[in-house]
Amino acid sequence: MSTAADAAPDAPTVPDFATVFARLKPHVRALDAFLAAQIEAFDPEVRDMADYCIDTSGKRIRPALVFLSGWRDEQVSDDLVRVAAVVELVHLATLVHDDIMDEAAIRRGRDTAARAFGPEAAVLLGDALFSHALHLAAQFPTTEVCLLVSAATRRVCSGEIIQTMRQGTGSLTREQYFRVIDLKTAELFRVSCLLGSRLGGYEDSFVEAAASYGRQLGIAYQIYDDLTDFFGDEHRIGKTLGTDLISGKWTLPLFELSDVLPNAERQQLVAELKGQADPEPARWARRMRELGVFDRVEAAIEAHLQPGETALRQWGDLPPVGRLSSLAGVLRAQLEVLRAAAR
Amino acid sequence: MSTAADAAPDAPTVPDFATVFARLKPHVRALDAFLAAQIEAFDPEVRDMADYCIDTSGKRIRPALVFLSGWRDEQVSDDLVRVAAVVELVHLATLVHDDIMDEAAIRRGRDTAARAFGPEAAVLLGDALFSHALHLAAQFPTTEVCLLVSAATRRVCSGEIIQTMRQGTGSLTREQYFRVIDLKTAELFRVSCLLGSRLGGYEDSFVEAAASYGRQLGIAYQIYDDLTDFFGDEHRIGKTLGTDLISGKWTLPLFELSDVLPNAERQQLVAELKGQADPEPARWARRMRELGVFDRVEAAIEAHLQPGETALRQWGDLPPVGRLSSLAGVLRAQLEVLRAAAR
Repeated sequence: MSTAADAAPDAPTVPDFATVFARLKPHVRALDAFLAAQIEAFDPEVRDMADYCIDTSGKRIRPALVFLSGWRDEQVSDDLVRVAAVVELVHLATLVHDDIMDEAAIRRGRDTAARAFGPEAAVLLGDALFSHALHLAAQFPTTEVCLLVSAATRRVCSGEIIQTMRQGTGSLTREQYFRVIDLKTAELFRVSCLLGSRLGGYEDSFVEAAASYGRQLGIAYQIYDDLTDFFGDEHRIGKTLGTDLISGKWTLPLFELSDVLPNAERQQLVAELKGQADPEPARWARRMRELGVFDRVEAAIEAHLQPGETALRQWGDLPPVGRLSSLAGVLRAQLEVLRAAAR
Repeated sequence: MSTAADAAPDAPTVPDFATVFARLKPHVRALDAFLAAQIEAFDPEVRDMADYCIDTSGKRIRPALVFLSGWRDEQVSDDLVRVAAVVELVHLATLVHDDIMDEAAIRRGRDTAARAFGPEAAVLLGDALFSHALHLAAQFPTTEVCLLVSAATRRVCSGEIIQTMRQGTGSLTREQYFRVIDLKTAELFRVSCLLGSRLGGYEDSFVEAAASYGRQLGIAYQIYDDLTDFFGDEHRIGKTLGTDLISGKWTLPLFELSDVLPNAERQQLVAELKGQADPEPARWARRMRELGVFDRVEAAIEAHLQPGETALRQWGDLPPVGRLSSLAGVLRAQLEVLRAAAR
């Protein structure tokens, strides 16, 4: 198993956010500084806990979408930094709540908030982060950001609720899976691109194209993320392998695997998802390798990346377009890293 | 034990929200209709769960504060109904999350959302209710409602976090207790009065007085509510007696009791709050009766009701003043019902 992190210096390096978007770095630093300054807004007793959640080790994908969608002349306005903070705080709040539900112990290589402070405090801490995100959203001159972010947040929650209610039942359909990831992941990607391009001053029809690209990228990204539950490098991804399987979540890799498994094995898989048998993520990863599931999942990812890129293409002369499109390239490159691990 | 509900027809009736605020009824009905219409805003899979939370059996205290603070000519504007819905949804969201933490099974005489749908779904459902509250807040022409409600919500969460982190440690101070209830309860009462009077078109200095009254009433109400953990009628209050004690919460009745208990008993009480001994709420209720704790708690309630009433008094000719002030009277009357139960 090899990763970008431990590759020899002369090995071909895999593009990731850090290398491809070096130009974003000052803006991500501005975001981190902005987020750090927000800690003061929390009541004194809560600041350390809020600070723990607003750490700087995240990938900051949604802020990157905001910055790239609103890109002009290498400049990123204060408004873009603020709205990037809003979407990132909403995302961090959902992570805090997700980790309670998944009973995950590790996130980004350290204890989850639920583990560090207890699940009860984590519920409330997530609420406080949500509230502060909306408070920042309310600091724009009009209510537009608040309207869009609150609606998106509600839809993110709906996606998570549907997923949670189906978890462990073994009865999610593939259609429902796509609806769940559209709500829980793609919605915030979509709104990040929408708000970035709008605050960047671009015209409505480009804003619509950027939003559409964001949504497709979000769906593709979530499918990729679901794949990392089987093939990722725990150290690099910073989370425990097999978490989704253990918590009874049907994801696209499992649908694809289920389609090609012999009947007896399929029943075994369903029993594991229902919690009726001990989950064996390593076994299913091996079967995915043997049965060509990786290719099928990769095709599903492409089926979303390509329409997203098509939506952007007609706006090829605008500054955001090339940079946004290259995010699809980053995702493809990350997928190749996983493929190497999956061999 | 006697309550308003089972009193003989010729017994003196105790004022409660239903009788004292008969005039509010059409407005509460307008609120209920408005809230019911909001269900459509949730994604189809989540509507039944949202509907379960937005039931009509609540006391609607915060909406009453909004309506009374903005009162003019017996009319309640659509804006007041909308903002009443915002504060009530925030409150309902916090209840959904509270009940997860307290592992409460019953709220208002029926299963809590956490019991009905599982704690995981309840976390997300609370989030969706929060999001929708902020979405409604964002539908006013300016960002003011959003700014005030999001800041208040964050402070409510801070109060709950401090309480949760201290729960079961046996080490909350009386000063911290008052800070907790100021944040977790009084803040939303305060903002309800602030927004009601502002949207009612009243001048800034009255808005300030109304907000101050709301805050004091909120503190008084929470102390009363903490007393109902020991003396309430489970059927009437709709929740299980002794819940706070069992979950290790220091409340004012316990501080007052602790002050007058002999040393050995005090140690026993602390051990119960720390979860080191089986909690005996009935025993402590009896000791409170024997040691005059009820009077001491009532004095603390008065110490907050009276400055609240004083703040309003100079505005005696405005329509909201008499009605808002009578809420203090309702709380005093409810306290007498408890006192009868405590004999």
